[in-house]
Amino acid sequence: MSQANSLGSQRSSTTLKNKLPAIGIDLGGTKLSAAAIVDFKVVSEARTVPTPQGPDKIVAALVSLIESFQREYVVAGVGIATAGIVNCDTGEVIGSTGNLPGWSGTPLKQLIESKTMLPVFVDNDANAAAYGDALAMGLTDATCVIGVTLGTGIGTGIVIHGKPYRGSNWGAGECGHIRINLENKRLCTCGKYDCWEAYGAGRGLVATTHDLLAQAGAKDSVLSENAQGLNSHLITSAAAGGDKLAKEAVNLYHQHVSIGLANLANCLAPEYFILSGGMSKVVDVQLLGEMVRERALPRNADKLQVVKSSLGDFAGIVGAAQCALDGIAPGTTLNTGTG
Amino acid sequence: MSQANSLGSQRSSTTLKNKLPAIGIDLGGTKLSAAAIVDFKVVSEARTVPTPQGPDKIVAALVSLIESFQREYVVAGVGIATAGIVNCDTGEVIGSTGNLPGWSGTPLKQLIESKTMLPVFVDNDANAAAYGDALAMGLTDATCVIGVTLGTGIGTGIVIHGKPYRGSNWGAGECGHIRINLENKRLCTCGKYDCWEAYGAGRGLVATTHDLLAQAGAKDSVLSENAQGLNSHLITSAAAGGDKLAKEAVNLYHQHVSIGLANLANCLAPEYFILSGGMSKVVDVQLLGEMVRERALPRNADKLQVVKSSLGDFAGIVGAAQCALDGIAPGTTLNTGTG
Repeated sequence: MSQANSLGSQRSSTTLKNKLPAIGIDLGGTKLSAAAIVDFKVVSEARTVPTPQGPDKIVAALVSLIESFQREYVVAGVGIATAGIVNCDTGEVIGSTGNLPGWSGTPLKQLIESKTMLPVFVDNDANAAAYGDALAMGLTDATCVIGVTLGTGIGTGIVIHGKPYRGSNWGAGECGHIRINLENKRLCTCGKYDCWEAYGAGRGLVATTHDLLAQAGAKDSVLSENAQGLNSHLITSAAAGGDKLAKEAVNLYHQHVSIGLANLANCLAPEYFILSGGMSKVVDVQLLGEMVRERALPRNADKLQVVKSSLGDFAGIVGAAQCALDGIAPGTTLNTGTG
Repeated sequence: MSQANSLGSQRSSTTLKNKLPAIGIDLGGTKLSAAAIVDFKVVSEARTVPTPQGPDKIVAALVSLIESFQREYVVAGVGIATAGIVNCDTGEVIGSTGNLPGWSGTPLKQLIESKTMLPVFVDNDANAAAYGDALAMGLTDATCVIGVTLGTGIGTGIVIHGKPYRGSNWGAGECGHIRINLENKRLCTCGKYDCWEAYGAGRGLVATTHDLLAQAGAKDSVLSENAQGLNSHLITSAAAGGDKLAKEAVNLYHQHVSIGLANLANCLAPEYFILSGGMSKVVDVQLLGEMVRERALPRNADKLQVVKSSLGDFAGIVGAAQCALDGIAPGTTLNTGTG
């Protein structure tokens, strides 16, 4: 059991003592965040570095981050949650995102495994976050849990019967691109009009506020002085300060978010929506829940819970690491089965 | 093997010879349709009776229909596909539909089992139809197949990894009530505005045509003479005859159907949409497929197939009967395991 001693001082239970951690890494457009995970619990401090430009430098930064953990821990494996669509069997990034130019086509699992000699699992960040959040809430027996990341876009991850649901072609959970309007009013980053995220993501709140400012009588708002530099922080702050137009914008924003949630409730009848991402920190989760229950069919609304993530920014790290641990044969850990 | 001889003359393979059929029944607002099913194949003629008024009379009609099969077949069990939401564990109707007043609360499985002494399985009609269609197309290995019934409403059934997905509270697949517009333009039968089925069901086509007729220049259309009595048959006939307004209405109808399909494609990334119901007989399935692929994210559109049901009106019958057969222990059939 000498290897287990190198787990470090963060271990807090006898269960953890006998198990090796996986390193979970959340790979976003601006930063790489990592932590050591055992039994879907964070057992180290988080380590963060800026995301470098280009696939080669990103891979080098990932390896460097993993090695920094290997100097302190005996690591069982690595789970990486990345923006973009991922083939989880091969660990290849097969669909890119604007935040990571040139990332599509990267055989990430193969590259990191060959450089670290560790088993690596790669998943889409929203899928990993939903899985991490569902595990952290003990919802492995739930029929369906949907994680919704409300940020500059909307990402969703669907967990069915305790496992991430990835669809054919690995493309499930792109629910931010459900169309919720027919009027061709708002162009989405995907190139189509009127996707849910064009209304329910942070930039949706900004667009809604611009719409209101363009209407008559908007000059009373403190936001009219700063219309060019609007962002979601300015708007929610103005609403908190009592600005009537900002309050109306924030209320409309809640309605827009709730429409997408109610659509998913009618489609998949989940027990839980778990919200994460920057905008989740400013939404009124109780109001959202009421709006969803008002809109969804009664049968799908009765017991539905809308809650905020208990893991916050760690959700993707935990979910990806746990996927790695799920895929590692029991013999590769020090768990002797005696707990 | 004397019991197997009573299967009747429709059996056509050695596989069928050794197995007892289940009776599948599709219970709709206007008629009860039934047939004998073995290995998700129809092995009898269909029998149809009008749906009587009220739960007691419906149950009596179901029993009478089942007994009519029992006079000719040794029956392994009964599968009933009914409108409304069903708890498939208890076989109770837990959510009703306007077409079957008073139906909610009926303990259908228990009532039919006590009167026929046969094992009974009950499911929602759209779920059963999707399962039947997926089985008939051999799609048990598919990640996701979505059956879409385009009728006076839109019903959907989701089959994931070869099994019906019913969600928590049994309410999944109410995708007809996904909101696709923000303008509060069309009131749906569910009491909310702008559900997919308010645009994509048969009455959606009628509403779209009324919208066009209300616009300037509509007097040229043959439909303007009969605006009060419009129905989907009149509209599609006029379009087939070259009427410009009717053609525009039918094209808009295809767009409205495709928006809901693309939403589901982005959410669940299915391999197949299988269309059934009265309106599926008049849609251009190739045009729908193109529109869905145009709207959905490329990854979710690439290999997506939109097809018409090969079972047609038998889909619910086959799916419900097969669910009954799935749930019956092997010992209750005459299949000796030697094929």
